[in-house]
Amino acid sequence: MTSKSELELFLSLYEPLKAQIVSDLENFEANQEMVERIKLVMDYSILGGKMNRGISVLSTVKLIKGESITKDLQEKAIILGWCIEWLQAFFLVADDIMDDSPMRRGKPAWYRNDNVGMIAINDSFLIESFIFRILKIHFRQQSYYIDLIELFHEVIYQTELGQMLDLITSPTSVNLDLFNLDKHHFIVKYKTSFYSFYLPVALALLACGETPDSKSFDISRDILVPMGVYFQVQDDYLDLYGDVKLTGKVGTDIKDNKCSWLVIKALSKCNPEQRKILDLHYGKKSDEDEAIVKKLYQELDVQGMFLEYANETEAHLNNMISNVDKSEINPQIFYSFLNKISHRQK
Amino acid sequence: MTSKSELELFLSLYEPLKAQIVSDLENFEANQEMVERIKLVMDYSILGGKMNRGISVLSTVKLIKGESITKDLQEKAIILGWCIEWLQAFFLVADDIMDDSPMRRGKPAWYRNDNVGMIAINDSFLIESFIFRILKIHFRQQSYYIDLIELFHEVIYQTELGQMLDLITSPTSVNLDLFNLDKHHFIVKYKTSFYSFYLPVALALLACGETPDSKSFDISRDILVPMGVYFQVQDDYLDLYGDVKLTGKVGTDIKDNKCSWLVIKALSKCNPEQRKILDLHYGKKSDEDEAIVKKLYQELDVQGMFLEYANETEAHLNNMISNVDKSEINPQIFYSFLNKISHRQK
Repeated sequence: MTSKSELELFLSLYEPLKAQIVSDLENFEANQEMVERIKLVMDYSILGGKMNRGISVLSTVKLIKGESITKDLQEKAIILGWCIEWLQAFFLVADDIMDDSPMRRGKPAWYRNDNVGMIAINDSFLIESFIFRILKIHFRQQSYYIDLIELFHEVIYQTELGQMLDLITSPTSVNLDLFNLDKHHFIVKYKTSFYSFYLPVALALLACGETPDSKSFDISRDILVPMGVYFQVQDDYLDLYGDVKLTGKVGTDIKDNKCSWLVIKALSKCNPEQRKILDLHYGKKSDEDEAIVKKLYQELDVQGMFLEYANETEAHLNNMISNVDKSEINPQIFYSFLNKISHRQK
Repeated sequence: MTSKSELELFLSLYEPLKAQIVSDLENFEANQEMVERIKLVMDYSILGGKMNRGISVLSTVKLIKGESITKDLQEKAIILGWCIEWLQAFFLVADDIMDDSPMRRGKPAWYRNDNVGMIAINDSFLIESFIFRILKIHFRQQSYYIDLIELFHEVIYQTELGQMLDLITSPTSVNLDLFNLDKHHFIVKYKTSFYSFYLPVALALLACGETPDSKSFDISRDILVPMGVYFQVQDDYLDLYGDVKLTGKVGTDIKDNKCSWLVIKALSKCNPEQRKILDLHYGKKSDEDEAIVKKLYQELDVQGMFLEYANETEAHLNNMISNVDKSEINPQIFYSFLNKISHRQK
């Protein structure tokens, strides 16, 4: 678990970084009205999450360098962590428009606010730009500056490609023929896994002086990307079977015609009669349709299939981590990520 | 004027660059469905414009180096020109959603197509990413690679800031108190001028080996940014007073409550009675309201004000160019830009 002080340390840099964005806006002649709006966009869309991704850059740097890291490296790790949080905010602000989502983190989605609407598209662009402004301010003198920029560009592109396949696979008219495990795997790998699991470790490695040709990046990718896929499959599972008291949200994947791991497993196991039921009732907005799909999942024991998958996947990930060449990278980094999500309930 | 062969040369690299984007997608495991959609997005949103911005990188490089430029430099200039066209497509695809525009370049705006809608937001992100993929493929080995990236980041940020002020200044409810010449100047400078006028020359300078600390960048900015502002004021003028046979479009700025140079000049000259007329009839959707505003503009001689402004501005720009230190940069570069827009009718 993240220690409280690590979270506090992370949060303590938010206001200074925001102040730097604001002060940098003077170079662009921004008026007071613009500055106030940018502050509002930042606070609204960046804060309020768990910050797990952002904090994990610092945790990883500590596991690479030991607890005795310099103040300067600590600060750099936190700044890079905030860049991940901005990257996420950039995508979430836009995703909520594309998904027509009413809520985000217990508040109305940003675009649903008065006087926002489609302006939120440009706001999301601005949040993306903050990443590169802050990188320029803090990392321009570092030998790995260009590597940071290329890494962000690559991960942004990967996430966009994942989002693209997700959007064209879940159209408004239901067609379960479009769903399959390959697509699901691509979507979660690209849309979530690279930026949530690989990016924090890759940033930490760069900040610690590893060059992109080092094997540590490949090892990290090979373990963390499948781990991120597992994380997302858990998400699909918890959407339906999670305890609302723990997850804090009532899932809507069945009603929303989502290309979920659960429906793909159901499709793979159902007989022609059961398939007809899915075709008729999946992706419909009523509680009755949803209940019918849920009952079918029970008959097919989709829950059991998930538990089997979860056990196998965790065993596989543990095995990969235990085989990591310690002279290349500290395997504790990967155990730390896995521990946070192992058999998670929320 | 752009010679036909220069345009042909420019266009001849479109398909190869598209093929590189597609081939690069193999590194990201994109399936055929995604590849086909990306090709479609590119063709639809990038082609069909005048390509003036894109071509001007090559024209500028020729004026810096003389006609005897190497094949390699010529190709680099064209590639950088295409990056400007992508930058523009990235913004236009998104702007059309934010402005609720039905048409673009004589076709339905991209988001208005069947099976597109809000997915166009993610498409616009992808087009932005193509810029950095192509820069990586073609310029990674160049000493000025990082300068190119920083320049694109900066201009993208400037354009977003201009778009932001534009969007929060033209809300759906009409309030002419929000309009003033300072805001208009900021909006057109940031939203249009940097990427349309400064960016092509700055890219050409970098490709020709100038480093960002060279005076040639400041000289270019000092001349080209005001020239871009003038270009946009011409646009505001032509929206109402242009010959439809030449401009190819019927302007809607009055009906759309646009923060146009014309209404700002009218506001600056009108008496309280005339102001009431503007408050009542500006930004309304009917032809009658528009005709009343148009008649008032005539009374105030807004057209005469523009012609005076145009003459003064062109004299000022000519004067600035004639004072350029030829040892720093060839002034023909700026005359060439000015000639293209001087007293333009379309």
